[in-house]
This record gives sequence, structure tokens and C-alpha cells, in this order.
Amino acid sequence: MITKWPKLVPFVVSVLTFVSVLSAEAIAEIRGSGDLGLVVERTDGAVKILETSTNRFLSRVEGLGDLSHASVVYSRDQRYAFVFGRDGGLTRVDMLKGEISQRILQAGNSIGGAISQDGRLVAVSNYTPGGVRVFDSETLELIADIPATYNDGQSSKVVGLVDAPGNRFVFSLWDAGEIWIADMSAPNAPEVTRFQNVGVNPYDALITSDGRYYIAGLFGEDGLALLDLWHPEQGVRRIIPGYGKGSQKLPVYKMPHLEGWAIAGNHAFVPAVGAHQVLVIDMNSWSEAGRIEVKGQPIFVMAQPDGRRIWVNFALPDNDTIQVIDTESLEVIASIQPGTGVLHMEFEPRGEEVWMSVRDLNQVQIYNTQNIEQIATLPASKPSGIFFTARAHRTGL
Amino acid sequence: MITKWPKLVPFVVSVLTFVSVLSAEAIAEIRGSGDLGLVVERTDGAVKILETSTNRFLSRVEGLGDLSHASVVYSRDQRYAFVFGRDGGLTRVDMLKGEISQRILQAGNSIGGAISQDGRLVAVSNYTPGGVRVFDSETLELIADIPATYNDGQSSKVVGLVDAPGNRFVFSLWDAGEIWIADMSAPNAPEVTRFQNVGVNPYDALITSDGRYYIAGLFGEDGLALLDLWHPEQGVRRIIPGYGKGSQKLPVYKMPHLEGWAIAGNHAFVPAVGAHQVLVIDMNSWSEAGRIEVKGQPIFVMAQPDGRRIWVNFALPDNDTIQVIDTESLEVIASIQPGTGVLHMEFEPRGEEVWMSVRDLNQVQIYNTQNIEQIATLPASKPSGIFFTARAHRTGL
Repeated sequence: MITKWPKLVPFVVSVLTFVSVLSAEAIAEIRGSGDLGLVVERTDGAVKILETSTNRFLSRVEGLGDLSHASVVYSRDQRYAFVFGRDGGLTRVDMLKGEISQRILQAGNSIGGAISQDGRLVAVSNYTPGGVRVFDSETLELIADIPATYNDGQSSKVVGLVDAPGNRFVFSLWDAGEIWIADMSAPNAPEVTRFQNVGVNPYDALITSDGRYYIAGLFGEDGLALLDLWHPEQGVRRIIPGYGKGSQKLPVYKMPHLEGWAIAGNHAFVPAVGAHQVLVIDMNSWSEAGRIEVKGQPIFVMAQPDGRRIWVNFALPDNDTIQVIDTESLEVIASIQPGTGVLHMEFEPRGEEVWMSVRDLNQVQIYNTQNIEQIATLPASKPSGIFFTARAHRTGL
Repeated sequence: MITKWPKLVPFVVSVLTFVSVLSAEAIAEIRGSGDLGLVVERTDGAVKILETSTNRFLSRVEGLGDLSHASVVYSRDQRYAFVFGRDGGLTRVDMLKGEISQRILQAGNSIGGAISQDGRLVAVSNYTPGGVRVFDSETLELIADIPATYNDGQSSKVVGLVDAPGNRFVFSLWDAGEIWIADMSAPNAPEVTRFQNVGVNPYDALITSDGRYYIAGLFGEDGLALLDLWHPEQGVRRIIPGYGKGSQKLPVYKMPHLEGWAIAGNHAFVPAVGAHQVLVIDMNSWSEAGRIEVKGQPIFVMAQPDGRRIWVNFALPDNDTIQVIDTESLEVIASIQPGTGVLHMEFEPRGEEVWMSVRDLNQVQIYNTQNIEQIATLPASKPSGIFFTARAHRTGL
């Protein structure tokens, strides 16, 4: 089941000479970078840089291309954001100067990225032409190209790319039904371990915060694919047969995001695909431990940093609502309606406040997590993803 | 058992006018603060500011007083270190400028400190005159004074001070045998909840990384005192009767530090007081799950961020050794001898390297955590505690 594939096909990357767009309010002074973050303005190709200590925006950076499905990772010094755009753009944003430091178009269509444990390598997973490309995080020079080739040379879309301890990247091949581990110990010559027949159409994945378990959702069949990275020799196994597209009773309006899975104590809380439920998984046995009825089809199911509550947003037509679940009673303890198009949430690192993008109100709203009361509203144009620099220090984020 | 005690006795703090000592190599340029840290030079009253991305020192700051037992917390923007000295000194160090921004002598003899969840308040636990004082993290102005008064007005030494979710501080009273929660929702009027008769002489404590469980070690009797902060109404209960001074067979050369306790999966790994063992605690039942024989009396028992291995240092005469335990097999898989006086360790936030102070060699050594090989050595004068800025984003650190 496991085969090694260390060879790489060189690939020419188009590097755009880029004149950075410096915002008027750009930060010029010496300051810490631990309380920064950014909000994606999805239709403007822009990001707004924020400060959580004062709940305000500091600057706005334009020129990031198509951000209709964007994600972000941070450099280990928390100065630079790497923004992965839908158009294959990889943009390195200087959070302190409020400007773009580099930008390349590394592929035709990309879906996400990750930064290596040591912070030296940024990897991007691509739809077109498929595969994973790995770049130097300082220069954005191409370091390695890993085509996702299967069968007779077909190329697979790659999804669910995450970093793992040991300077590894792990990702899933949508078309091939495979999970790959790329060990980047020698950055120019990744050593790839392939797991075949993991399930039909893995569509997204997560890694637990300790970097041990990689779990892919399967679009083409029931259940999830689980890989224990402490024991790759045991291969991938199928868990939670009640999960996934095969069991759905309702049309799926939007695929849930698996990066948002929540772990509290021994329980993982995951969005049930297509059902109005949050699944509870017992992580000791990897079996289902319960289902919580919620208002709609959950998209992001996120735990507060203290694990005491789970916050859930929903697909249409319930995308105006957030529900909050108590992790002890497994009951919904609050429902709020921030407005239509609540697309994403991000908790401050020690959990006292949560930021939310409310697309159709052109607002970012900030709530106190203890009493679930709104404490601030900031203007943003069609905001989507929110990403704080504290992610730099977390595996898988 | 629980009584409320909201009143405070005002206390005049002597603020020292301080001329900061700016090192020659001080950092002047704009830079991120996520990969910084400091090493305490315990006999020089100095700290060396370090950068984990390059494994080097950036600058040295002097004038911090008696650092023979020092600890450090960080501001939420990761720019400022708050250094708690043995002499009651509280020093705010600007990590980016490499200089002291403020310094006060807030008591005669202090033992440790914490920063509130929201980052606005810094608390110090004192031996002389006892109690906890709370300061504004921007100005070091006194915000609240919480005398640890018990019985007929006696003052207790305070130990085991940590932050907890809900902007609370939790601490233990050595002389009184009590645990207190101070809710700082109204910073000028802390609301104190007292738990009495928790055990004889609590000497140190820890809080789990989710901020739920506060556990104090007891010097005067067997066992530990456990407080579930999700359920303070259940009070404090005694756990692990095999733990503690009462059961010791050997003289205790140095009290272990409880902040260093390690949690991996459902197991907590703790130093057995006075015995050559690491105790394994099942966190579901809070009962003992095993004992691992080690070379000497453990002091710090610390988990890698990925939870896969536990690193242990020891009291005299074994303080030249580090042992590494595999958390699955519960076996010692490596013993290394960095040199006499291995006082402290700190893992890089995503765990790829670990820094160690080797006092008698005047060295800080850096190891790759995967192959346990030394990769760098840096000079430092009698180094003790090592603290990275990533602690800013963690509860209880």
C-alpha cells in the first residue's frame, strides 16, 4: 500500500514583478506582531490588517487577485501572511508595513496552503494543474514540485493540505482517492509516502492540534479516512460510517470545512454533511458518541480555545445564524443572528473574544465569548476569512 | 467552604525611576516578535533576548535585580516581557528595543506572576508581605491589592499563581492551606472566592492548557488538590494519594515545578516528589496510571508540543542529565548529558527544537527534538529560565 516516490518534475513559476500597494494608514513604527490578523475582502482582492488589542483595523492591502476562496498561514516571526488565492496567486503580505512584499502566480487554480513546522517552506495545493508546489518562505522561490500523478499519468486535484511534525506536509488527492505524506527533511527532494484506496473523492481534511491524526472527509462515500501519523505503517482506515454524503437526506448547499473541526476533551465535534446536525466523535474509539440537532447545515464547527463551547455557522438558508453548544451538556445554549452571510469566525488566542465576518452587512462583528454579547462592529467590504497571527505557532493552522 | 471577600487594602508601591540599559546590539528595525524569547542570567540580574529562527542572541538587558528565582510572562502583542524577580521586582522589558521600559519593586519577596486572559493585568504572588498585587500591563500602576489574610488576620505566602479563562487569577496560600479565585471582571474590585482546607502547605500549582483544571501540589501531606474551574461549586478534592512529600523515601533536594507538568492524550506526566519516578495520571479518572523509573528526582517534566515525548531534568546529583520518555510505550528512549546544572527547557512553539540552560557550562544548548541531536550552543552567564514569546497566546504560561 505504501510506495515511495522521491523524484520531482521541475516547474517554471511565473513571478510577477509587483509594486506594492501601501495603504495610507500603513504601520511605520516598531511594534509587536502577536495581536495582529487580517480579514479577507473577497470581492476586492484585498485584506484588512487588524489589531485584536484595540479591536480596530490598521491598514488595507490591495492587489491580491481572486480571493473568492482564500486561506492564510503565517511566518514563524508572525510578520508575514501568506495568502493563497483561488487564481493560484501566492501573496506574502508584510503585516507590519501593511504592504505586499512578494506575489507570484504559482498555478492556474489553487485551493489552500500550509507552512512547514520550521517555517522555511510554504506549500500550495492546486486544482489546475493539480499537485503541490513548495516555496521558500523568504523568497517565494520554487523549492519542490510534487505532481499528484496516479494511474497512467493522470493528474489529481489536491485538497486538505496541512503541515505535520517532522517537517512533513500531508494532503489528499480528490481524483485519485489517495492520501500522501511528503517528508521535507531534504527540501529539494521530498520523500513521498502514498496511501492508496483511502476512499472515493476526499474533499477536505484536518489534522489534530497535536499533529497526530489526519482525517479526510469523503465526498463519494460514507465515512471518513483516518491516518495515524505516529503509525503510518498501519495505513489509512475508515471511521464514522454515519458521516458523509452517502447518508445525507438533504441536498448539500455548501461543503463543510474540515479545518474548523473542534476538539474538546475526548470529543471531536464535526459538521454532519447535509444534515442539520453536529456529530460528536469519541476520540478514544473513533466512534460516534452522539448527534446534536442544530438549525441548519453546519459549515464551520469551532471550539473556543478553552474547549467549553462550540460555535457553529450554517449554509443557506440559515447563513444568518450562529449557534453555541455547551460541550458538557451537548446542548445548544444560544442562537444569535449576526446577519446574512456569516462566513467565518476566529477566536482570539486565549479565547476572550471571537470575530465574525458578516458578508451581506459588510461588517466584522466582535463578541465577548463569556456572555455572547456583541462588543464591536467594524466595516469591511464583503468580508470572508479571518486569520490571526497566533496561527503561526499552531500545527495545522 | 466558599466565602466571598471583595474588599481590598490599598498599598503604596515604590516605583523606581529607571534609566534603561540599552545593549549595543539593540534591535532598531521593524521586525516581527513571534520568534523571540529570553534567557535569564540568574546571577547577573540580566536577560539575553534570543531569536529562534536563527538560533542566536540579539541583545542583552541588565538591571533586573535578583533573578535567582525568576519567571516571565508576555504581553498579548508579544512585544513586552514581564520578568518577576525574587526581590519583588517587576520589570517590563521591551523585546524589540532590547531595553527596560519600566521597573518597580512591588514587594519584598515574590515568587511568580501571571497575565490576565485579556492581557490588561499583570498579577504577582508574594512571599513578603504575602498576597497578590495586580498591575496595569501598560503602566505598571497598581490596580488591585489582594492580601492573603486568613484566621485572625495572619498573612499567607502565595504560590502557584496562574491566569484562567474569564479574566480570573487562581492561586494557593502556603500558610493558610487555601486556594483562591480572583475574578478580575471589575479590575479595581476583584471578587475573590476562597476554598479552605484544601491540604497542608500547597507549594506550587498548574492549570491545564484549556484552563479547566487547577492542581496544587501539597508539601505537608500526600496527594494533590484539584479544582475544576468549570465547577467551582463542587469545591476542591484530593487526588493521587501516592503523590507528595508524605510518601517520599528519599530526601527532597529540590522541589519540582508544577508548571512544567506534561499532558499527552489522556495522560498527565508529573514528577514524583523525592522519588526517581515520573508518575502517569489518567485524566479521565484522576487516578494513577503508572510510574516510570528515571535516573533521579525529576524537576521539570515537559511534553513536546506534539505530545509524543516527555523531556525530564533532575535535581542534584543528576542535574547533568536529560531523559526522554516515549508517551506511548512509557519507556525512557534516550538519556543525554548536556552538562552540570541543566535548569530549564523550552520547546519552540511547533516543537521542532528545544532550548536548554546548562548553568555550569555557561551555555544554552539547542537540540533537534526528532533525533535528539545537539545543533547549536550559545554562550550565556549562569543561564536558568528560558521563555519564548509564544507563551503570550497560551493559558497558564
